[in-house]
Amino acid sequence: MTAAEAAAKIRDGALTCEALTRSCLERIEARDATVKAWLYLDKPRAIAIARELDKRAPMGPLHGLPLGVKDMIDTCDMPTTHNSPVFQDYRPARDAACVAVARSSGAVILGKTDTLEFAAAGRRAATRHPQNAAHTPGGSSSGSGAAVGDRQVQLAFGTQTGGSHIRPASFNGIYGLKPTWSSVSREGAKQYANSLDTIGWYGRSVDDLTLVAKAFRLHEAGEIASPDIASLRVAWCRTPFWSKIEPAGEAALEAACARLAQAGASVTELVLPPLFDGMFEAQNTIMMAEGRASFLDVALEFGDRLHGDFHERVDNALGITPERLLAAYDLAATARKAFEALYADFDVVLTPASCGEAPESHYSTGDHVFNAMWTLLHVPCLAIPCTTGPKGLPVGVQVVAPRQADARLLAMAQAMAPVIDHETPRYAHIA
Amino acid sequence: MTAAEAAAKIRDGALTCEALTRSCLERIEARDATVKAWLYLDKPRAIAIARELDKRAPMGPLHGLPLGVKDMIDTCDMPTTHNSPVFQDYRPARDAACVAVARSSGAVILGKTDTLEFAAAGRRAATRHPQNAAHTPGGSSSGSGAAVGDRQVQLAFGTQTGGSHIRPASFNGIYGLKPTWSSVSREGAKQYANSLDTIGWYGRSVDDLTLVAKAFRLHEAGEIASPDIASLRVAWCRTPFWSKIEPAGEAALEAACARLAQAGASVTELVLPPLFDGMFEAQNTIMMAEGRASFLDVALEFGDRLHGDFHERVDNALGITPERLLAAYDLAATARKAFEALYADFDVVLTPASCGEAPESHYSTGDHVFNAMWTLLHVPCLAIPCTTGPKGLPVGVQVVAPRQADARLLAMAQAMAPVIDHETPRYAHIA
Repeated sequence: MTAAEAAAKIRDGALTCEALTRSCLERIEARDATVKAWLYLDKPRAIAIARELDKRAPMGPLHGLPLGVKDMIDTCDMPTTHNSPVFQDYRPARDAACVAVARSSGAVILGKTDTLEFAAAGRRAATRHPQNAAHTPGGSSSGSGAAVGDRQVQLAFGTQTGGSHIRPASFNGIYGLKPTWSSVSREGAKQYANSLDTIGWYGRSVDDLTLVAKAFRLHEAGEIASPDIASLRVAWCRTPFWSKIEPAGEAALEAACARLAQAGASVTELVLPPLFDGMFEAQNTIMMAEGRASFLDVALEFGDRLHGDFHERVDNALGITPERLLAAYDLAATARKAFEALYADFDVVLTPASCGEAPESHYSTGDHVFNAMWTLLHVPCLAIPCTTGPKGLPVGVQVVAPRQADARLLAMAQAMAPVIDHETPRYAHIA
Repeated sequence: MTAAEAAAKIRDGALTCEALTRSCLERIEARDATVKAWLYLDKPRAIAIARELDKRAPMGPLHGLPLGVKDMIDTCDMPTTHNSPVFQDYRPARDAACVAVARSSGAVILGKTDTLEFAAAGRRAATRHPQNAAHTPGGSSSGSGAAVGDRQVQLAFGTQTGGSHIRPASFNGIYGLKPTWSSVSREGAKQYANSLDTIGWYGRSVDDLTLVAKAFRLHEAGEIASPDIASLRVAWCRTPFWSKIEPAGEAALEAACARLAQAGASVTELVLPPLFDGMFEAQNTIMMAEGRASFLDVALEFGDRLHGDFHERVDNALGITPERLLAAYDLAATARKAFEALYADFDVVLTPASCGEAPESHYSTGDHVFNAMWTLLHVPCLAIPCTTGPKGLPVGVQVVAPRQADARLLAMAQAMAPVIDHETPRYAHIA
């Protein structure tokens, strides 16, 4: 059952919030020792909140829906550890803005999901891939991606600074939206890079993603009719980083193109101009340079107790000069404008969401080379499950629209998803 | 005594942190009923912290220096009310990043200063201009500007999204730095507009500003020698918004130019290309559009208890379209590049810090028309006191450098300040 289906049943009185919350908690109970997606759960509290929601009129689009929160996002009634040894006892006094909006929209905040330390570097999440514990579920939104992928919860918040949100969606066979930069407040989520940090969410369908977009009042969310697939002009894009693609990633992109073409969509190739070649490096330059300021307070406060990765950022170990940083900012600005000018010739860009399947690793969370450029472009990105790789793990693709066109992207994805994502149920062997 | 002078005396053992803190508290005691700069003070705690600092080795550049914090910046040991009726009981569990850095550098966090509600709109600060209680001290950093101007404390944090930091510096006859956007973490300060919000600080000299810049490890801060004034190429700039200048603002700019020229600097006029004409409107568009997301959580949480100004932002009362927002973003990006290209012909830009003197008002905090463009350009801006207006109130000017050139701006300002700011003591009549 998707979140949107559950929401409809709750609205119709066919399902209680409490029953839905309990079913999530039961699934977590059965699976958490293997998947390790959660850093904190307060089951009695979640049930009590769900019960209260059952008694009252619908609060908003997320009424009664359980939601997982990446543990670098503040919650007023749960610890926020950032998966950092130095934040184990931290209990924020207020919810992060995104959590407050979700609560005001009726969501049941189920618990906190494991994450790469501060969603940036340092300590890895303990989370394992739900289908193969030798593999990473991706990161930094490891727990949120795995929990939704493993059907422990329908909705969860992740974040993306490089590729932390869309990549885990691909690896876990789920849907994910990284909205336009700055269209959702990231107050109360750990800051890494001002120009990049974005709150995103996972769901099990495009409708699920739209529900949350409505809660955040993204411009026209849920108000645009899904277009006829035959009218869609899809541009598939290898990106300048194609040398990093793996066979499974290439197969997913090819399958998505073939399925869309067969369904009647116009499918053409988009070759980005050379201007975009430097976008991966530019994203890294900005992330590392802005990270200097973001981790200075904890570097001074915790000294040697803080992981060396963060001291490297604060100490500018890469030796990034002001000139290099400004060149990266200016390239990004030029590329944003250039990218959107290309849309005269098509409606949506289809491109890899990850290099391929989730790697076999408990350290690497995979490469963000197919995500970083889009993050820096500030454009909305939506992950759609597509194929299964040679190891039997999911591989997704992503669709991309211009900045601020989140609602249109959701509407187009609603038309494309049934065509691209046709290998359900993907998780039959663990059900 | 400036902060830098006090720091030197503390280092030499000629002054204790405790004595300095007590002298600030005494001045506040004498003046607070009139100026109303502070929303919260914990005198015994400040004295206890100062006493502890007297016992230990220097912690950093701010060792023993009292510092005021604008009350929309989180403090772990004091309330953070945002001057909002709905946040009166808020006690954050952690310091904002800038407060944590200041504490780790040895600062004594003296208390919280009054502010426009959420530093954005709504309720006005109760603070009065130290020299004339019928006038505004400027805003939104009202309390910080007035407290430093009234010699109640040497250093204070402000913030700027439109003109909230530099304008109060001008009105209160003090020095202020708004550093390059994203060079100082604003985690834990209330978010208004992601693309604009910047933490700044006030001091009583350029050296004071440099001390804080060193604490934040701004690139090369304090490492660049102050240039010979005769070698400086100064470009004075009316900006495209000159029709808003008042006689006192014009007189300040003219006086600064004349004094610099007399001291041997090269002083030429910079006329910005027409591209810049739309920058004021672009700043407002971005501020209001990003404010939609920033206040959604409190709008949902507090409903009618939240001031209507914030609901206007959340509800997009201005009807800003995605196209208009993107045009504003793209104009800003183009202007950033164009502005910095102009620097081949000069070293620093000299431009109004405010329209003129502080207006006679308890509601308006003055016009940010001479600040907004620079905020949107992301460039460092430094306010220098200059003249006295017809009502006997101070009027400053500001100097502006390219992004990331904060340290060079500080070094140049150190050469220019003794020339521009020669009407000391400005506050003789209240001393």
